[in-house]
Amino acid sequence: MISCPILPDVQANRPAVPINLTRVGVTDVKKLVILKRENRDPVTLTAVFDIFVDLPADRKGSNLSRNLEAIDETLTETFKMTSYDVENICGFVAENLLRHHEYAGRAEVRMRSEYVLDRRSPVTGISREQFINIFSEAVAERGTGQDHLIRKTVGAEVMGMTACPCAQSMMAETAENKLRELGVEEEKIRIFMENVPMATHNQRGRGLISVRTTDVKASLLERIIRVIEESMSSDIFEVLKRVDEREVVEHAHKNPKFVEDCVRTMAKKIVDSFPELSDDSFVTIRQINEESIHRHNAFAERIAELGDIRAELRNNA
Amino acid sequence: MISCPILPDVQANRPAVPINLTRVGVTDVKKLVILKRENRDPVTLTAVFDIFVDLPADRKGSNLSRNLEAIDETLTETFKMTSYDVENICGFVAENLLRHHEYAGRAEVRMRSEYVLDRRSPVTGISREQFINIFSEAVAERGTGQDHLIRKTVGAEVMGMTACPCAQSMMAETAENKLRELGVEEEKIRIFMENVPMATHNQRGRGLISVRTTDVKASLLERIIRVIEESMSSDIFEVLKRVDEREVVEHAHKNPKFVEDCVRTMAKKIVDSFPELSDDSFVTIRQINEESIHRHNAFAERIAELGDIRAELRNNA
Amino acid sequence: MISCPILPDVQANRPAVPINLTRVGVTDVKKLVILKRENRDPVTLTAVFDIFVDLPADRKGSNLSRNLEAIDETLTETFKMTSYDVENICGFVAENLLRHHEYAGRAEVRMRSEYVLDRRSPVTGISREQFINIFSEAVAERGTGQDHLIRKTVGAEVMGMTACPCAQSMMAETAENKLRELGVEEEKIRIFMENVPMATHNQRGRGLISVRTTDVKASLLERIIRVIEESMSSDIFEVLKRVDEREVVEHAHKNPKFVEDCVRTMAKKIVDSFPELSDDSFVTIRQINEESIHRHNAFAERIAELGDIRAELRNNA
Amino acid sequence: MISCPILPDVQANRPAVPINLTRVGVTDVKKLVILKRENRDPVTLTAVFDIFVDLPADRKGSNLSRNLEAIDETLTETFKMTSYDVENICGFVAENLLRHHEYAGRAEVRMRSEYVLDRRSPVTGISREQFINIFSEAVAERGTGQDHLIRKTVGAEVMGMTACPCAQSMMAETAENKLRELGVEEEKIRIFMENVPMATHNQRGRGLISVRTTDVKASLLERIIRVIEESMSSDIFEVLKRVDEREVVEHAHKNPKFVEDCVRTMAKKIVDSFPELSDDSFVTIRQINEESIHRHNAFAERIAELGDIRAELRNNA
Repeated sequence: MISCPILPDVQANRPAVPINLTRVGVTDVKKLVILKRENRDPVTLTAVFDIFVDLPADRKGSNLSRNLEAIDETLTETFKMTSYDVENICGFVAENLLRHHEYAGRAEVRMRSEYVLDRRSPVTGISREQFINIFSEAVAERGTGQDHLIRKTVGAEVMGMTACPCAQSMMAETAENKLRELGVEEEKIRIFMENVPMATHNQRGRGLISVRTTDVKASLLERIIRVIEESMSSDIFEVLKRVDEREVVEHAHKNPKFVEDCVRTMAKKIVDSFPELSDDSFVTIRQINEESIHRHNAFAERIAELGDIRAELRNNA
Repeated sequence: MISCPILPDVQANRPAVPINLTRVGVTDVKKLVILKRENRDPVTLTAVFDIFVDLPADRKGSNLSRNLEAIDETLTETFKMTSYDVENICGFVAENLLRHHEYAGRAEVRMRSEYVLDRRSPVTGISREQFINIFSEAVAERGTGQDHLIRKTVGAEVMGMTACPCAQSMMAETAENKLRELGVEEEKIRIFMENVPMATHNQRGRGLISVRTTDVKASLLERIIRVIEESMSSDIFEVLKRVDEREVVEHAHKNPKFVEDCVRTMAKKIVDSFPELSDDSFVTIRQINEESIHRHNAFAERIAELGDIRAELRNNA
Repeated sequence: MISCPILPDVQANRPAVPINLTRVGVTDVKKLVILKRENRDPVTLTAVFDIFVDLPADRKGSNLSRNLEAIDETLTETFKMTSYDVENICGFVAENLLRHHEYAGRAEVRMRSEYVLDRRSPVTGISREQFINIFSEAVAERGTGQDHLIRKTVGAEVMGMTACPCAQSMMAETAENKLRELGVEEEKIRIFMENVPMATHNQRGRGLISVRTTDVKASLLERIIRVIEESMSSDIFEVLKRVDEREVVEHAHKNPKFVEDCVRTMAKKIVDSFPELSDDSFVTIRQINEESIHRHNAFAERIAELGDIRAELRNNA
Repeated sequence: MISCPILPDVQANRPAVPINLTRVGVTDVKKLVILKRENRDPVTLTAVFDIFVDLPADRKGSNLSRNLEAIDETLTETFKMTSYDVENICGFVAENLLRHHEYAGRAEVRMRSEYVLDRRSPVTGISREQFINIFSEAVAERGTGQDHLIRKTVGAEVMGMTACPCAQSMMAETAENKLRELGVEEEKIRIFMENVPMATHNQRGRGLISVRTTDVKASLLERIIRVIEESMSSDIFEVLKRVDEREVVEHAHKNPKFVEDCVRTMAKKIVDSFPELSDDSFVTIRQINEESIHRHNAFAERIAELGDIRAELRNNA
């Protein structure tokens, strides 16, 4: 149903309505992606791709089966490479699309998949694989000669736990009043409250970071995941022994965070952890909390060039 | 693409493979449903219907456009009735299907929708509509004469909040030890712990009850919703003022529940609240907790005739 | 879990990480919306809202319960208005948000819902309600005095049918060759092929148009829906009699369209149908075809200012 | 939030409401599953598990972390086996659950995943991986001694293409009338109509087969997938060259099928292809067509013991 390669001239025909199309392509193409890695086992991902090129006003159709050939060709080539990483797949496919579609000025490739990392429970150290939603994107603009400008985006969404500071401070007030009423000394109350975090509502939160840049490094994705994990009240786990569970709950309650706090913590950690990223790197930082006391979600987001965030931290320090 | 009414004889033809079909029909048919109610405003629901009849081995097709006519005819008729309720719509449509499909021995109708109820926040009493997932079903078996046996199912899924008793008891142990270490007297510790519930992980839970019976009463659905709401650690709300939020968090933490406890509480309340339901009423009681410390969910379920649950409560008392 | 109004000063406190947030708010808030209309019955929509304000770097939290109050207050007010339309709800809520959050410079409101329209089958004229996905958005920037700049977006996604011109031309070639082989005269072949459209793959397609502008008119939405319906190979229906079904299939096959054609047809119709929209109105035009011969979808999209599309049509004519 | 192993006696305590629970467990547990195969590369699946045991009325909780241990232990063991297959994973886990939960009388394990098969386009033979939804289930009932009764279910859902015979016969009538009107001889009309299939609506269809039996064989799943693929109007593909596309469209239109026909064809093929399955094997056969002329779907289903279907085919032959 996309214009298909019936006879070369049909696709190249002038269309009845001669306007440009921003993107034409195929979506929801599922592929196995095998990442070879130095000194580590290869990783197999099931990835879903969306693949587009632009289409000039004087061209009826876009020979879309070429998109599927471009992705297959690229994956076949890259599967033979040893040092090859998830951050760059979309870029390889986008460049290949420009080779296959000589009329196109821009090619876009989006990929979403799940990444598996080993994580250990905090006390007993039980190791389990964690599945993490990842995504990447590349936009290649045709340049002069062989060189195309390619901007790449890579990111992840990680589930964790957030505990509300507001409800906790109200519960703490109740506890302090009760201890006071029972005649416990102020100093003891202070020590108790400092050491034992009070109840509050807590819930699953989902942190997301994406970084768009022209200089993506191979190790960016795993470091992004780590930043997200460390920016909520607590990381979460698949298997927890009794002592692990106590540790997770206590840690989360000693580290309560508003939805706004999670985004700002991620922003701070990005600035601290990625000094190599250029100021014009474009970042999206988002937190969604599946509030346990509401049916709706809490949401906070910062979208900016990294240089702006760096400047705000400097200027407001 | 379902066999359509091209010429009467085509549908009535013997098929190439002469086997019975359990159900043939249409799914995901969206309709507006208007419920007139005595002394109250009418309620408009957006409902999605699945509609089926069985098909004998000697019949190629099932004239499926008749299903859509049956539902339209039924809804038109029922919209004129004054005392008419969500519990009985599917039954009306199922009977109508048997009239339209003279070859069918059984007709099935399933409906899912959202029901809106006013709920007040616990302290300040702010009133807000709550949207609740509801569903109903009817199976009509062709009887002799005009009377068909109709079994009807009605149910709801309600979101609430659950707080874990296990993590809470560990946090309570920590608190008691700290107070003891600070030299607070045992009696004061006891009073404090009785009055101030300690922290634990809590989360969104989803309780579900469905009841299948031949004697559905109009008021069954709203009472089912109330039972589910009251069986978790706390009901949840769309708008909470500061004092409401404290109350919800405190109430939930004073009422911690395992996923198993939620199901058993619902079972007990069903036995207590619906003495009029016959012993052969078939109930499904389910709780799913979206654990804030895990990526996976906790699940518990009881599926049984109401008579069996009544007997267990009597015998194990 | 969003920063809540514990004590006024807590929200207004400087946060530990002093950076601006692009948007803070609540998502997935479900509300009943009642649209009063002149000379027509009121319409009840179940709408899901996302509501945001920006947050300056020197402010810890955003008193999010105020968002829910703003939406409730707005809906209550607007329900009393007689001439009031779906295109403007989000704008009213966004303005109200700026009143409630004095520190915010920008407020954003998004709504998604389903709209019901009566549609008649093409031959027998059976009337049925069709459910159509609609959405709207408003972004209000705080201005000087009482006047805020508000940009509003309104749009719809409509399901229809698309038939592939490429496969059809191959099937036509097969048919012509067969008639030629049977000795049928060329002139008769020509007339036959002109009158009887040959087979091809066809499928559900989803067309989408959204328009962002500062001068939204009340009647925009229903006209957008009509443009989408008329830009695929055929509109689709809930109930079709035999002669209706023949007409739909024949009409679709006489009107085959690539995914690119659907977008370009919508673009042309927007230019023709909305002369009143200013050149800086920003339009998104998208078509997704759920290809019956593939597991993946075909996709085409144009995103541009309306002035650019107008210019392309003029210049390329 | 499921009752967790705080102190052995807490779980073993009598609950406040002493009723049995049908199933208690965890859902949506994601795991990597590695299938070693003789003479073939190992297969890696991302599988989602639901794991349950029943819970007697006199027991408060079910030590649910043991479920996660049972699945990990089982997967670790099975990963070391050479001849091991997807049809039996759930059975291994279910047996292991009975070992871990000494109080349980029944254990249930459900798995859903995606299976990848190579498929070649019909003319040019381009090979591409196809992703197919698969699922399996095992229910183990505690027996005397070491032997438990285990019933296993395995199945798949495959997407294909269906073309409507009813609309096609109407379009054929139109074509015949036109040829007659043009004076083409009846014999030539007959030959033309026999060789060139006329237009009709066609769409994505989803066929599903599941088989529950006590004697699951390793090769069952791939054969089930093949039966589903061959029971619609045409299989579908990821990449099609021009001649492939013509072949798919022509094949589908020469092989039009009602939703009822797809189910009956699957039933016949199951009887023919699986003579080794016992009469008490329980089969579900389902077809859902995403009708291109409607917003709703067409649905047909047969649920029966295999012996009943065999008898119907014999008796109605």
